[in-house]
Amino acid sequence: MAEVRAKANKKVVLKDFITAGFPKESDMEVVTTDTVRLKVPEGSKAVLLKNLYLSCDPYMRSRMSKHDEPSYVPDFVPGSVITGFGVGKVVDSSHPDFKVGDFVWGMTGWEEYSLITETEMLFKIRYTDVPLSYYTGLLGMAGFTAYVGFHEICAPKKGEYVFVSAASGAVGQLVGQFAKLMGCYVVGSAGSDDKVNLLKNKFGFDEAFNYKKEPDLSAALKRLFPEGIDIYFENVGGPMLDAVLINMRTHGRIAVCGMISQYNLEKPEGVHNLFYLVAKRIRMEGFLVFDFFHKYHQFEEIIAQYIKDGKITYVEDKAEGLENAPAALVGLFAGHNVGKKLVVVSHE
Amino acid sequence: MAEVRAKANKKVVLKDFITAGFPKESDMEVVTTDTVRLKVPEGSKAVLLKNLYLSCDPYMRSRMSKHDEPSYVPDFVPGSVITGFGVGKVVDSSHPDFKVGDFVWGMTGWEEYSLITETEMLFKIRYTDVPLSYYTGLLGMAGFTAYVGFHEICAPKKGEYVFVSAASGAVGQLVGQFAKLMGCYVVGSAGSDDKVNLLKNKFGFDEAFNYKKEPDLSAALKRLFPEGIDIYFENVGGPMLDAVLINMRTHGRIAVCGMISQYNLEKPEGVHNLFYLVAKRIRMEGFLVFDFFHKYHQFEEIIAQYIKDGKITYVEDKAEGLENAPAALVGLFAGHNVGKKLVVVSHE
Repeated sequence: MAEVRAKANKKVVLKDFITAGFPKESDMEVVTTDTVRLKVPEGSKAVLLKNLYLSCDPYMRSRMSKHDEPSYVPDFVPGSVITGFGVGKVVDSSHPDFKVGDFVWGMTGWEEYSLITETEMLFKIRYTDVPLSYYTGLLGMAGFTAYVGFHEICAPKKGEYVFVSAASGAVGQLVGQFAKLMGCYVVGSAGSDDKVNLLKNKFGFDEAFNYKKEPDLSAALKRLFPEGIDIYFENVGGPMLDAVLINMRTHGRIAVCGMISQYNLEKPEGVHNLFYLVAKRIRMEGFLVFDFFHKYHQFEEIIAQYIKDGKITYVEDKAEGLENAPAALVGLFAGHNVGKKLVVVSHE
Repeated sequence: MAEVRAKANKKVVLKDFITAGFPKESDMEVVTTDTVRLKVPEGSKAVLLKNLYLSCDPYMRSRMSKHDEPSYVPDFVPGSVITGFGVGKVVDSSHPDFKVGDFVWGMTGWEEYSLITETEMLFKIRYTDVPLSYYTGLLGMAGFTAYVGFHEICAPKKGEYVFVSAASGAVGQLVGQFAKLMGCYVVGSAGSDDKVNLLKNKFGFDEAFNYKKEPDLSAALKRLFPEGIDIYFENVGGPMLDAVLINMRTHGRIAVCGMISQYNLEKPEGVHNLFYLVAKRIRMEGFLVFDFFHKYHQFEEIIAQYIKDGKITYVEDKAEGLENAPAALVGLFAGHNVGKKLVVVSHE
């Protein structure tokens, strides 16, 4: 019997829980303290992955702080490897659904090799003729979030007026494109002129604006939506939500995907205009992609076809190497990324 | 041809638009400046009503202020009679749906006689064997609001945990009873110990609390809902909503009926905990009864039967005479009323 190889396993570790404020690179460290056997344990139903791409996502901010009550995702464990969505290749497996050589995406570790013992959030990649890194975004959690959020929560109709905040981000850029494919009018907001250009000239948004240059957000929305907003895909929270509420149309819908402007504040900002929910009979609904995984295969098939037909545009912003992973994650909250932020651990 | 009688027509007039703050009695005046012919004009399709009961409702506060943009209900006209929901008897009619002697409820004036030319919001009373004043509340807008808000917006299931704020008010007391009839656990909040007693001992709420005596609203809700809240029927807004959001269960629903705690503020208070909409996948939906009038007959039949079967308890708080109407309306915002506040213009 051949000796099982053991390899050094570089990883990104959270040093300690952080409190309010932006996360810093120094809150994490990249270490190579132990080795990994490239075999799953005897008698297990586990999968050993070589990680290729890791996804940087806003929801990870919440996991870096300690919660007194269980949140919808567990807190990270200080001193342990950070976990998140990623793409990997199966190096060994004792699980019947995954075999050596398969490409998979799902919940993995920010490290070179991960032993996955809980496989509910691991999915075999069925389309290997598209860039595999797309499974960290377009074909992974961000894309699926955009898809279920827009189609299931917003219940869009052709010709409706759609507004997307954080529109150049991983989710927003796709919501805008899904809305255009439905025949909607779509406006996006973003935090730099470069991003605004991208929205208008690459992603096909009808209009876009730089929220940092608008002293009056409500006036900006009124200018771009003289008839009002039917659908708001909410990614930011705070003052933008207040401005949107003023500009919503009767029977409008707000899909609450995230509130990234609030994640680093000690106390979230107050939202003052909620009475418009009554006056305009607005439905505002939060959602998490975790509730929709039974629809993932259907989604994967549709999007893979869109990609092959050239119907969808997707921009990635890649950081090379685990060493650069902390900076990549931290940059997300400063809005440094243009397009989907991901870390390349190893090329295929 | 008999001469048409003309009668003096006492009425309540809004003197001028008010800005922020509680309305005062002196913002209105009771005048008898003109007379009314007790005949509808020739060639019209109008109804002349003798008003019997007038409903005092929180939404009327909004109509007392000037809005730059059209609101969901038109502003009152300074110098003119206040309008609102009420019960009346048809004195003359040239409308095929209404004949002399019919009792009706709907939008009318705060005056002795009203000529109704727009009859979309006028409904013939089909059950005259219940107290007619009930059509200002239980069988009128408040009851119908409670019914559609609870059954259509909250989508309740047997055994769910329901919280109602402003629970002793016209709408709240009924939501609680509809929830009990569905087999739910129901807790209500109110602003005095008397109201709390009423909720527990008269309306059959499982629990109730005086929010003015709770320094920590979230802790109060945690005490009464150790498992969390499935359904929140929102009548008050502000800090109560923030406390509820913390205590909601996954996939909870919030029907936003009103936000009475905010109506007299210059700027509404901020709500800080909206991210729970995402973490707990909460649907929060505003509604107005105006969208549901096609279901009114079905509602009227069900409630009339409930009343006859003794399945529902209803408390009215009557002010006698138009002279006392301004005080009755103003008292609503100070929480003076116990049960449904209405003004008796004339006994049947």
